[in-house]
Amino acid sequence: MRRGKIFIVSGPSGVGKSTVLKALLEKRPDLYFSVSATTREPRHGEIDGVHYHFLNVDTFREWIAKDEFLEYAEYVGNFYGTPKKYVDLAMNKGRDVILDIEIQGAIQVCGKRSDAVRIFIAPPSWPELERRLTERGTDSPEKIQKRLLRAKVEFQTAYTYDYFVINDSVENAVEELDAIMTAEHCKPKERMEIINSR
Amino acid sequence: MRRGKIFIVSGPSGVGKSTVLKALLEKRPDLYFSVSATTREPRHGEIDGVHYHFLNVDTFREWIAKDEFLEYAEYVGNFYGTPKKYVDLAMNKGRDVILDIEIQGAIQVCGKRSDAVRIFIAPPSWPELERRLTERGTDSPEKIQKRLLRAKVEFQTAYTYDYFVINDSVENAVEELDAIMTAEHCKPKERMEIINSR
Repeated sequence: MRRGKIFIVSGPSGVGKSTVLKALLEKRPDLYFSVSATTREPRHGEIDGVHYHFLNVDTFREWIAKDEFLEYAEYVGNFYGTPKKYVDLAMNKGRDVILDIEIQGAIQVCGKRSDAVRIFIAPPSWPELERRLTERGTDSPEKIQKRLLRAKVEFQTAYTYDYFVINDSVENAVEELDAIMTAEHCKPKERMEIINSR
Repeated sequence: MRRGKIFIVSGPSGVGKSTVLKALLEKRPDLYFSVSATTREPRHGEIDGVHYHFLNVDTFREWIAKDEFLEYAEYVGNFYGTPKKYVDLAMNKGRDVILDIEIQGAIQVCGKRSDAVRIFIAPPSWPELERRLTERGTDSPEKIQKRLLRAKVEFQTAYTYDYFVINDSVENAVEELDAIMTAEHCKPKERMEIINSR
């Protein structure tokens, strides 16, 4: 049986990543979307193990000490991390895994799993990203300009990613993600073993 | 407009490569299948520029001297080569190009075009390749054993390829080739330029 692979998906705020990933899951229902661990309090309606794995700070520290995270970070006083065990469980069943994390986290993961595939979801253009952020209506104009600048900065290091998917339409973006996942399973390493063993 | 890419497709005799490539062309009618140049005499019904570009030995030598081949080889007294110009013409129009050549030729091409993508069409198993060669009915049992051994030798260097497509069914193989071509156009290099220019 083929082993699952890790696909890291990053992209700037407003690029439409969650819509694309939701549509991808409909096309590939066997995908496992990694659930992060966090030390922050659950919000109303959030379910442990579904939205997050909620841990107290001591447990989080213990997991760090035991090297049980693929990556972790601190964000406004709370810790967030990707637990190894659920990812490995899914991969051992042959399921591909999606990690929805940003560039810093992606670098951490690749240090531990060099065969993880990194995909950057990019906007079709900068004006279009600005339009989407404005349309969303959740940010002030100043905040939007800050997000745009941040996206441009991030984009300068994004060439280290394996793939760029341009989200010009959800349909195209899903088709490209789907193709990337199929293509990555055609890399020689796994398959030479398969063929030589027969 | 996106620029076309070179996809080199290799695989052992009997693997079903031509059937797969024919089906791929139906799915992607815009593909350009590179036509080789040769110094051998045209056979009955062969059309210059369609089956081969038929050249005399002097012209072939001249083309070598002018570096007009992506690769060339000698086979039972005749020369065969892949002319650059038709490949470049197609690529400049944004068309992807298929080169149906063996491992030695693939190495030559990659020396000149390091971004060429190499795909190896592999049999699902060695017994299955033997079965297909036998079923074809064109070779003696001794010849089949020789072909099998040659295929196994070739396969030991095939790990240098970018992708392995296992031809367990034409449908699967075409789907994988199609995915690889889509995925390869998602590599960051071309796309960063696109996005930064907007």
